[in-house]
Amino acid sequence: MDKALVLLSGGMDSTTLLHHVVKGLGVGEVSALSFLYGQKHGRELEAAVWQARAAGVKAHDVVDMGFFGRLTAGGSALTDPAIAVPRMADLSGPMLNQPPTYVPNRNMILLSLAAAYAEARGIADVFYGAQRQDRYGYWDCTPEFLERINGVLGLNRGRGVRIHAPFIGMSKADELRLGAELGVDYGHTWTCYRGEARPCGECPSCVERAGAFEAAGMMDPLLAS
Amino acid sequence: MDKALVLLSGGMDSTTLLHHVVKGLGVGEVSALSFLYGQKHGRELEAAVWQARAAGVKAHDVVDMGFFGRLTAGGSALTDPAIAVPRMADLSGPMLNQPPTYVPNRNMILLSLAAAYAEARGIADVFYGAQRQDRYGYWDCTPEFLERINGVLGLNRGRGVRIHAPFIGMSKADELRLGAELGVDYGHTWTCYRGEARPCGECPSCVERAGAFEAAGMMDPLLAS
Repeated sequence: MDKALVLLSGGMDSTTLLHHVVKGLGVGEVSALSFLYGQKHGRELEAAVWQARAAGVKAHDVVDMGFFGRLTAGGSALTDPAIAVPRMADLSGPMLNQPPTYVPNRNMILLSLAAAYAEARGIADVFYGAQRQDRYGYWDCTPEFLERINGVLGLNRGRGVRIHAPFIGMSKADELRLGAELGVDYGHTWTCYRGEARPCGECPSCVERAGAFEAAGMMDPLLAS
Repeated sequence: MDKALVLLSGGMDSTTLLHHVVKGLGVGEVSALSFLYGQKHGRELEAAVWQARAAGVKAHDVVDMGFFGRLTAGGSALTDPAIAVPRMADLSGPMLNQPPTYVPNRNMILLSLAAAYAEARGIADVFYGAQRQDRYGYWDCTPEFLERINGVLGLNRGRGVRIHAPFIGMSKADELRLGAELGVDYGHTWTCYRGEARPCGECPSCVERAGAFEAAGMMDPLLAS
């Protein structure tokens, strides 16, 4: 593989993935693609810009999907100001399968756009940072989802694109261990769904991150100061 | 079915589909969704606005994907000013399978966005105007494509969405006959890829349209004056 595109949000998963593709897999020409899809805050994107530079990517494009919040109005706590980001402790039962932080069909949209970007540029391989979900889950981060997305893209009669998610069977703790080997600076990643000055510590994403650092026996540099 | 969303471009296929869903299927609450994805002209969208009003839809939203031309730069004659729209006569051999007018992964992107729009609003059924292609073809208008897209969306654990393409086995001439029964005014549709004052008559889309009107034994009102 001499070229690849990495979907980069600036969170732990996609940041580790970016450095894995550049250093671990040694792909020569790596591009990164980030999306503004109406998230309530821009902390993740700042981290994405920092990490893309640190990884020395060939190109980092940011796509502003300004319309997305309106498109999915009422659909998600991540994009609708009227819906509060829940605490992990609030999630239970069926809600764990599709929490309020689920954004309607987001991953299919982002992967479709990334595939178009790659296809137009003759890049055959696209990476995204789905990983094994232990505490709660989204249907659009599963191995079945990945397989079916590739089933759609496999019909292309011209320059086809394939999506890879090498972390899809890995826990976040496994990712952190890999990232530590690759020298990833997690002080420049952002995970909290709320985006205040410091991570809130209560949202599902913060709770998962804290659990992963603990399981990996590492300190989270974001909480160090 | 009491609610539906129709993907409406303002071309013959989606216009006929809109009126079919409203009048033919008698769905009570129909919404329409159109996209600006960097097409070289806005003639289709004008037609879409006119037809949505004529059909009396509940809502017609237009999503401006201004970034799309840049995302797929170099990828298509429909969105890149540097690539000429071909004449039908120029297409032959393998080019018929993926002509220069193919837009990288467009239909997967538009259907993903439409599914998100529908999911956020509790609309379970989305219609799109893919039809049988006789002269040339796109992989993202085939029955296999539709089936696999629904395979992805079928994994949703919450309010799932299903895509319907009732014309996928029909010719354009069949569509015109149906449209005539439904009283569709094809004078307010736009098919030409070029978007000049009058249809060019040479691009693949114009040639198909002319053939369909001829096969249906109808006059094209766009060419009448």
